[in-house]
Amino acid sequence: MKLKIGLSALVAMGLMGSMAVADDIKLSPQEMKKATQIYFDRCAGCHGMLRKGALGPDLLPKKTRQMGTETLEYIIYNGTPGGMPDWGASGELTKEETKLMAKFIQLDPVSPPEKSLGDMKKSWKLLIPPEKRPKKPETKRNWRNYFGVVLRDVGKVAIVDGDTKELVSIVPSGFATHILRTSKSGRYMYAIGRDGKASVIDLWMKKPQNVATIRVCNDARSIDTSKAKGYEDKYAVVGCYWPPSIVTLKGDTLEPIQIVSTASYTYDTGEFTREARVASIVANHHKPEWVINVKETGQVWLYNYKDPRNPKIHMLMAERYLHDGGWDLSKRYFLVAANARNKVVAVDTKEGKVEAIIPTGGTKPHPGRGANVDHPKYGPVWCTGHIGSNDIVCIGTDPAHHKKFAWKVVKDIKLPGVGGGNLFVKTHPKCNYIIADRPVNPDRKLQTQLYVIDKNKLEVVKTIKVPEKYVKEREVTVNGKKVKVKPRGPVHIEFNKDGSEFWVSVWGNKLVPSAILVYDAKTLKLKKAITGDWVRTPTGKFNVYNTMYDIY
Amino acid sequence: MKLKIGLSALVAMGLMGSMAVADDIKLSPQEMKKATQIYFDRCAGCHGMLRKGALGPDLLPKKTRQMGTETLEYIIYNGTPGGMPDWGASGELTKEETKLMAKFIQLDPVSPPEKSLGDMKKSWKLLIPPEKRPKKPETKRNWRNYFGVVLRDVGKVAIVDGDTKELVSIVPSGFATHILRTSKSGRYMYAIGRDGKASVIDLWMKKPQNVATIRVCNDARSIDTSKAKGYEDKYAVVGCYWPPSIVTLKGDTLEPIQIVSTASYTYDTGEFTREARVASIVANHHKPEWVINVKETGQVWLYNYKDPRNPKIHMLMAERYLHDGGWDLSKRYFLVAANARNKVVAVDTKEGKVEAIIPTGGTKPHPGRGANVDHPKYGPVWCTGHIGSNDIVCIGTDPAHHKKFAWKVVKDIKLPGVGGGNLFVKTHPKCNYIIADRPVNPDRKLQTQLYVIDKNKLEVVKTIKVPEKYVKEREVTVNGKKVKVKPRGPVHIEFNKDGSEFWVSVWGNKLVPSAILVYDAKTLKLKKAITGDWVRTPTGKFNVYNTMYDIY
Repeated sequence: MKLKIGLSALVAMGLMGSMAVADDIKLSPQEMKKATQIYFDRCAGCHGMLRKGALGPDLLPKKTRQMGTETLEYIIYNGTPGGMPDWGASGELTKEETKLMAKFIQLDPVSPPEKSLGDMKKSWKLLIPPEKRPKKPETKRNWRNYFGVVLRDVGKVAIVDGDTKELVSIVPSGFATHILRTSKSGRYMYAIGRDGKASVIDLWMKKPQNVATIRVCNDARSIDTSKAKGYEDKYAVVGCYWPPSIVTLKGDTLEPIQIVSTASYTYDTGEFTREARVASIVANHHKPEWVINVKETGQVWLYNYKDPRNPKIHMLMAERYLHDGGWDLSKRYFLVAANARNKVVAVDTKEGKVEAIIPTGGTKPHPGRGANVDHPKYGPVWCTGHIGSNDIVCIGTDPAHHKKFAWKVVKDIKLPGVGGGNLFVKTHPKCNYIIADRPVNPDRKLQTQLYVIDKNKLEVVKTIKVPEKYVKEREVTVNGKKVKVKPRGPVHIEFNKDGSEFWVSVWGNKLVPSAILVYDAKTLKLKKAITGDWVRTPTGKFNVYNTMYDIY
Repeated sequence: MKLKIGLSALVAMGLMGSMAVADDIKLSPQEMKKATQIYFDRCAGCHGMLRKGALGPDLLPKKTRQMGTETLEYIIYNGTPGGMPDWGASGELTKEETKLMAKFIQLDPVSPPEKSLGDMKKSWKLLIPPEKRPKKPETKRNWRNYFGVVLRDVGKVAIVDGDTKELVSIVPSGFATHILRTSKSGRYMYAIGRDGKASVIDLWMKKPQNVATIRVCNDARSIDTSKAKGYEDKYAVVGCYWPPSIVTLKGDTLEPIQIVSTASYTYDTGEFTREARVASIVANHHKPEWVINVKETGQVWLYNYKDPRNPKIHMLMAERYLHDGGWDLSKRYFLVAANARNKVVAVDTKEGKVEAIIPTGGTKPHPGRGANVDHPKYGPVWCTGHIGSNDIVCIGTDPAHHKKFAWKVVKDIKLPGVGGGNLFVKTHPKCNYIIADRPVNPDRKLQTQLYVIDKNKLEVVKTIKVPEKYVKEREVTVNGKKVKVKPRGPVHIEFNKDGSEFWVSVWGNKLVPSAILVYDAKTLKLKKAITGDWVRTPTGKFNVYNTMYDIY
């Protein structure tokens, strides 16, 4: 059903109607349809919907036609050391699909359609109006310790009780849900799918369900809510990849209020960029403002939502290409990766300015929200890992009391071995460790371990091998054919409310259930594996309390 | 030379390369080149560069091909009562050109190229660096009473001494200069051409000349400067039609600082609009802010230039299609026409909000800057005329002390006869009258008169017939062929510094010199006609002092 939505959007893009021809390259409407879907799912994230490049290089015909089908096929199949995944070798694309994509990217890119506020409204479903919702929590469970778990490839969100580890509810969401966020009170949990479908779950219900959904755009990655005093639970905001825009919604109903285009000029070369995608959004706790990171233009927008129909936007010139980030311990500074430039941008949201742009020394920083440590020597520091190198670096974030360390890499923690591949680091104020994953390291051993960093020493003090039974290869039968699938390893770490345990997902294939592993944050022992037929492609996990207060 | 610049831009648009074909319609590269230039000069203003419509309807092939060549030819030649000019009948286009345009607008529109900050910088010419300019006025003339006169079709600006009426200097400017503005001190006068060329003239020079020029965009209509305390003469800003953007420049050198796209969503239907043109810009005297009126989206942007690389923009949802406007007497409220909706939007720049949207009762309000009157009964009012009707309406602008008249049309002054056609109204605090022109009225008699409105009565108390010798038809020889040309009538009124006289231009053809007529503001008698071979196509006139302080 989710896939159908994805495809119908692509049909609407007008790509399916006719045979696509570019001299020697001919694709049938069926092939175009398939290639367009694969491109959207696998390639657009790094290379852009218009193929103009971002974290990955541009894939415009001028270049791709010179490279030719065979070279392109080889790269798509085997990947590159620069970070291009091995789509063929890893089994995600067949040989035929690899060849198809090698041809497809030699054709002219087609601009996807625009989407108006009217289009959005047509897709808006208020499933349970606010007045029919619970007046107080209906559940006796400790709902503030719920975990929302993204079941990515099956388009669902699982609500799991953090106390009992029981599955409380499974809620349908958009295709390939990217992240979850909670409202300030924690009552509402928001999901955003890669198909731009936003949904809101009411956690006060005995069995939490979607209470409203809306298709905001064709492609999105971020959602957040109004967290400032006086605006609690009032608004939600979606950051769209396509059309590149910021959409404000009513918090409880998802009724759309306003849409603002992010298409503008790159901060450095001043070139117009139609595809200026919203990479991430985070809510300021101190004032009615969202920090909006626009990937291609390298601009951070401080978006004041006090009067959401008439927004005030402070456009800060930062660095390219902006990706994800998180707050420092004081929640005054927001730190965001400029991944293609191997830098981190520190934004002072109190003064409304770029405070510093820090070269990390690593390759392709990928912080997620990062990990904060109040270090005895360096004071408050914020740490990020890298996709393309083995560095977990910590940056001083306290110019007031630790001036000489502020906005400098105070420690470069090397992960053992080679090949980079870290995606997330996470910690909790009550835990003595930062935990790091490494799911995109090509080495199977390194890929299936967790890395434990001591917060005082700022060193890797332990590696945790995920039990083999959770990551071993399995054979399944699909349409009468036997297929081998192998989970990538543990990905994304989240702590429970009191910081006594951390959860990691085993990144599997949707054909086979995998597991969510719960570790004791003190002993680092595996406490429990959450399993079941429903545990398919678990990825991001979001503890309600930690998400409400941005604890990481 | 100016025309060449215009054409080379169009060649760069890639429209010239090949034969344009749409089934039965075939245009040669030469015809395409000519039609594109005519479209840009005559049609794009109202119908949009992408032909999606604005004040005029859209001209997309879906519609135009259904109308067919003959119908289109008829309309282009004869105009319509709705406001479409009679390009053929008025002699501005030949029969052949009319036919060419009827064909051209049935072809698919082509999107013009983007322009980067780098492209701008390449065109930037710092002719006289600040350190080589006069340290104090070199002239003994009363330069604050200079008039900058746009000589539109010859691409020049004349500097005329308002005391002596002598020509002080003639300075080249962009193609079809649209307006002039001065810096806060009055020293610098800025011109913006329809080809997006900005230039700055130093009025302290004995013979004022351009000291810097830059081609900011392909099409522009507005320029202004930083007028707030502490920012005097510091920045200039250009509002572009294409690419639709706001470009900030250094005030004294025109070095480009920042470019921000205005492409966004229409305020009402929430539809993405690539061609969201900056119709007008005006500087706030009280704070470092420009009021930027975006035509197609119907948004007024309050653009804070305190830190020009990192602007703060307050986006106010207003009405479509925004055009030109001016300050109220207190300079707290900015009033701007939403011409297609027959409304005026009053923006409270102190509070940063749309204060009122007022239906004028007339058709297509066209205020220029409007005319302010401190009326004994209604208090401060602001008046605008209309292109499409005979109404000069005055709107109360003083909610603090005249609440019951505030944001209401307190008086609808009817111009005599029929046919509308007013472009500008103007007054001065020292003058008892508002003067109105009517150059686009189809009736020759009404077209060649000025209309005098008594400020107390708010009635037309007199009409002034421009002496026949200045508006009569003449025969000139062009390339050995005899051509008849006839000035349209008086257009655009400007007062001198002390308000004792007002100047109007006779809107002629560049083949024949016309005149600038100077009237006594008390007796309403013609005091002087400024003539000379250089007086070709005078249009807008800008008195330095009145422009410095926004006196109208």
